[in-house]
Amino acid sequence: MSVDRSVPFNRETLESVLKRRFFFAPSFDIYGGVSGLYDYGPPGCALQSNIIDAWRKHFILEEDILEVDCSMLTPYEVFKTSGHVDKFADWMCRDPATGEIFRADHLVEEVLEARLKGDKLARGQDHAEKDTSEEKKRKKKVKEIVAVKLDDSVAAEYEFVLAQIDGYSGPELGDLMKKFDIRNPATGGELTPPMEFNLMFETAIGPSGQLKGYLRPETAQGQFLNFSKLLESNNLRMPFASAAIGKSFRNEISPRSGLLRTREFCMAEIEHFIDPENKSHPRFSEVKDTVLRLLPKSTQQEGLNDLLEITIGEAVEKGIVDNETLGYFLVRIYTFLLSIGADPARIRFRQHLQNEMAHYAADCWDGEMNTSYGWIECIGCADRSAYDLSVHSARTNEKLVVRETLEAPKEIEDYEVTIDKKKFGPLFRKDAGKVENYLTSRTQCELEDLAKELSEKKSISFVVDGVQDNKTLSLDDSLIKIEKTKKLQHIREYIPNVIEPSFGISRILYCLIEQNFWVRPDDLSRSVLSFTPAIAPTKVLLVPLSNNEVFTPIVADITKRLRKSFISSKIDDSSASIGRRYARNDELGTPFGVTVDFQSVKDHTVTLRHRDTTMQVRGSQEDIIAAISAMVFDGLSWDDATAKLDAFEGQQE
Amino acid sequence: MSVDRSVPFNRETLESVLKRRFFFAPSFDIYGGVSGLYDYGPPGCALQSNIIDAWRKHFILEEDILEVDCSMLTPYEVFKTSGHVDKFADWMCRDPATGEIFRADHLVEEVLEARLKGDKLARGQDHAEKDTSEEKKRKKKVKEIVAVKLDDSVAAEYEFVLAQIDGYSGPELGDLMKKFDIRNPATGGELTPPMEFNLMFETAIGPSGQLKGYLRPETAQGQFLNFSKLLESNNLRMPFASAAIGKSFRNEISPRSGLLRTREFCMAEIEHFIDPENKSHPRFSEVKDTVLRLLPKSTQQEGLNDLLEITIGEAVEKGIVDNETLGYFLVRIYTFLLSIGADPARIRFRQHLQNEMAHYAADCWDGEMNTSYGWIECIGCADRSAYDLSVHSARTNEKLVVRETLEAPKEIEDYEVTIDKKKFGPLFRKDAGKVENYLTSRTQCELEDLAKELSEKKSISFVVDGVQDNKTLSLDDSLIKIEKTKKLQHIREYIPNVIEPSFGISRILYCLIEQNFWVRPDDLSRSVLSFTPAIAPTKVLLVPLSNNEVFTPIVADITKRLRKSFISSKIDDSSASIGRRYARNDELGTPFGVTVDFQSVKDHTVTLRHRDTTMQVRGSQEDIIAAISAMVFDGLSWDDATAKLDAFEGQQE
Repeated sequence: MSVDRSVPFNRETLESVLKRRFFFAPSFDIYGGVSGLYDYGPPGCALQSNIIDAWRKHFILEEDILEVDCSMLTPYEVFKTSGHVDKFADWMCRDPATGEIFRADHLVEEVLEARLKGDKLARGQDHAEKDTSEEKKRKKKVKEIVAVKLDDSVAAEYEFVLAQIDGYSGPELGDLMKKFDIRNPATGGELTPPMEFNLMFETAIGPSGQLKGYLRPETAQGQFLNFSKLLESNNLRMPFASAAIGKSFRNEISPRSGLLRTREFCMAEIEHFIDPENKSHPRFSEVKDTVLRLLPKSTQQEGLNDLLEITIGEAVEKGIVDNETLGYFLVRIYTFLLSIGADPARIRFRQHLQNEMAHYAADCWDGEMNTSYGWIECIGCADRSAYDLSVHSARTNEKLVVRETLEAPKEIEDYEVTIDKKKFGPLFRKDAGKVENYLTSRTQCELEDLAKELSEKKSISFVVDGVQDNKTLSLDDSLIKIEKTKKLQHIREYIPNVIEPSFGISRILYCLIEQNFWVRPDDLSRSVLSFTPAIAPTKVLLVPLSNNEVFTPIVADITKRLRKSFISSKIDDSSASIGRRYARNDELGTPFGVTVDFQSVKDHTVTLRHRDTTMQVRGSQEDIIAAISAMVFDGLSWDDATAKLDAFEGQQE
Repeated sequence: MSVDRSVPFNRETLESVLKRRFFFAPSFDIYGGVSGLYDYGPPGCALQSNIIDAWRKHFILEEDILEVDCSMLTPYEVFKTSGHVDKFADWMCRDPATGEIFRADHLVEEVLEARLKGDKLARGQDHAEKDTSEEKKRKKKVKEIVAVKLDDSVAAEYEFVLAQIDGYSGPELGDLMKKFDIRNPATGGELTPPMEFNLMFETAIGPSGQLKGYLRPETAQGQFLNFSKLLESNNLRMPFASAAIGKSFRNEISPRSGLLRTREFCMAEIEHFIDPENKSHPRFSEVKDTVLRLLPKSTQQEGLNDLLEITIGEAVEKGIVDNETLGYFLVRIYTFLLSIGADPARIRFRQHLQNEMAHYAADCWDGEMNTSYGWIECIGCADRSAYDLSVHSARTNEKLVVRETLEAPKEIEDYEVTIDKKKFGPLFRKDAGKVENYLTSRTQCELEDLAKELSEKKSISFVVDGVQDNKTLSLDDSLIKIEKTKKLQHIREYIPNVIEPSFGISRILYCLIEQNFWVRPDDLSRSVLSFTPAIAPTKVLLVPLSNNEVFTPIVADITKRLRKSFISSKIDDSSASIGRRYARNDELGTPFGVTVDFQSVKDHTVTLRHRDTTMQVRGSQEDIIAAISAMVFDGLSWDDATAKLDAFEGQQE
């Protein structure tokens, strides 16, 4: 059974369906809307919760993950420690004349893309790429493409910059703007150099207004802070993973592209805690032969974007993907996307460039889905190393570690701090404990530096938060010794590393909609959303042949049976033709239609229609509901589920 | 099959289980926590999502409700219009000497309760009501109970005030504080009179910092703003309901009682839109004989709290509950609570006092659950009348109405505005449209007033937002006429009323935990959480008899089969005794235990244990899994599901 999906995709047609059927719409629409905020209507909301449900089954249940639900409101201290207060920012430029604000990387990208299009136009290579309305809105900074031919070398340089646009720092973007003379596209006015703009929403917690807080920009920190409780919940066994599903918030400078860059969005994040000395995965052998399409950073650095098709086993072996656990999750992400109906030919994994990675990441791959907006980052799969647990631990003095009894004790050589407590106490008085605590809780790496300082200068200087107004303290070598000592270790203590697959549910939702949208070639007004039965917002459309009263009790009875089986259904008993009623639900993605006709009144049989092929079969109510249930819950194909039912040619659409 | 639940409830025991097993814990615990913010650990999170899942099936699926998911971030204008900016506040008092802040109604309540306890103590009526640790924390304002005898009339007055404590306004609370000399309990210092404190968290949206916004304190507004799109989604048919599930935020002055009053919480809200002239419900006859326990406002106003047991049919007939739709939802709320395992004897519905109702409500009943903290409001069921749709419509000039074609045209008499456009245009120039729009969009009620003003003063004066700097405008009767005119109405246009059942999921979750907690009389260290199978965080505990390797493949096989059936399971292959392992999972609420023993190796049979009774049966893996599935998904009882399996007495706990 195949369907003809040859009609070229047109985003305007899709957008009109999404708007008309209220998949989603700008929030506060009647107040004029607020950019970057969207509401999901009934089909969008059901689609979202079905995707989340599938995600829970694919990951939480299958991988035995510990799901948590943590607060979105977060006090300042937590994000100060995690680095978000200082570094979770985008670069923006302001036009001092007009007050307009631009996101620097987007501006450079749009201006260079526009110039390259203008170049093609001038060279007569324009393939009439028509910008759709939404695309125009997105690219509103550059109003029109002007046909200006570029030198070959300049065009090549633009292409090179665009291939790694995500990798530039703010000052580098500033240099590019100077070099390529990038200005306010509307007025030609000069812009300020890129400045950092923090993307977190700020608020105050409590009636005093004194406790500064933020809305979380990711769900991860809540999981890290609960690490010890989670390890305990897992009976102290490693490795293990936690996960959280929920809303996060980023105060985007210029939200764009509908659901693809919003200020409030649904995420699902897994934090997989592993031994830094052993990043293998027990189930890697199950996935190692899966072929993925990769775009490694080396390719991007050459200004190219050719994909590498390779088994994950080989990719890990060759060091393209850093370790088994990262590789295992790339495959699990891939199979998740396939299970919810993504197009395998439009999925790729792109490695982050060095500059592009979040401040905490050691390696990162994006799961990207291809749409009319280009390749969209939908999932990040990062190795966050021990960064988060280390910084929170250092800040709070709570150990966030794993203790592992060694089978054989091991001789180790560690730096150790010895303090002359007799002199130390009188010197620091009430702060003596704090200072001692500070010194004894340094990492081995920090102690190595301090030992060096002590041997060279015969004293060390340092600052302890909250002691003597944060003035620099000094200790000479009569008060402190920092020396390497050998000892037998019976318990190994380590801070786990974290592999983090992080899913942007709203983005996946949009990309899935685009990849599943098509138009029937025999009637261009009839569009279809080919969602899988498990993901489809509504599973069954119930259609009585006419509004004759004899059908009412049968329809009511089927509705009741479907509800009992937790299968969502809608009745369309309007006076429109059967074909028209089916068409209205094809564009909602309803996979099955059940028609009740005069034959049903006689023998309680009904017909079952397949959305994509419009094929129909006929059977008893029980058999039809069993077939639907098998397709919705057990993932059976139409052919398998309806094999024993009779083909039906009665009503024509 | 019954269980012995005779051991008295002890909150400290429960709290120790909840903490130890990480049902929930203060957020940012290692940073010292932030009051009113909690994280759910794995069992709490699973419990929450199972309750939400049950809610979706009970309401969304069964009542054919349109679920939406709207933004939490909301611009100022929306909450200004809805009245939240001006009225969504609690009353707080400050101690100018210490800077402490008190929530006025809580302070009055706690002080009077403490004095009544002191009175009982002085009268020798103290029944050794020991405050648990959490209770002490909650009642931290009043440090200790002092035995002071009160006059009988004073004690009676305190009781009277406490019975309607939720009904006092801020100034009334101030009067009570003066009358009863209520001061800072710790210092005896005098407090400021109660001042309003707005409970919404404020933030700024966008890079300019100019657009003020709030975190929503309820999900309702998003649903109201989308009314027209939702009506369209419902094929313009009335009545219908929308619903939203998600987090809301309230900046509580003094969060207390664990999950019962938090600053971030999960809600599920239904907005049922009905014809104000017809509040009947088509399915009311299905529920009319259900008996509910009601506490009407008349009883509370007499200072009493006796419950009225009455069928909902009679309650509506007698006008105790205002209308069928409100009554229908009270029953549906009740059956929902029963379906997730609440104790019917500990559910009541309390009517709001006039002062207590939200500013928009016309009538309101709270679904309350009884716990060791007393009766807890878990669900509000309010008639919000046409308030919200009216104010948003007036503010935005978007009609939020239903248009109904009348079967027979109807003669109506309405006020109508006629404007002399020739004079009007030059007078207001560019603002003429705005002024005209303002005048023609007045309600009939407002027009009646304006007509009166015009006939009395020969002119009207009014303010139009944004016109002439909001100065008062004036029009005399040469420019405008407002007269009653008769016409034939073919279409009836009305603003629907809203019945709103609003569920505090976090509160329901806590109350459910308390109502399902008990301790085995034969071993007080063994506590049990008797969640229903559908709600339980984990469904099955898998226990191999020992860590003998022969059991591993069998346990793995059962795990796989359970996963395929979407039944969550955990393995406990620790070296603890079988009884110990079961006990550990009884306190997590895991309803079923499957033991794999040497017999299993021979014939693939396993035993199935029932958490509450510790009864066991034996059968093939297939039969046992089928029985579990029937109990988890189809709601079958243990007796029905295991009728065909053999009783088993082998391993003792």
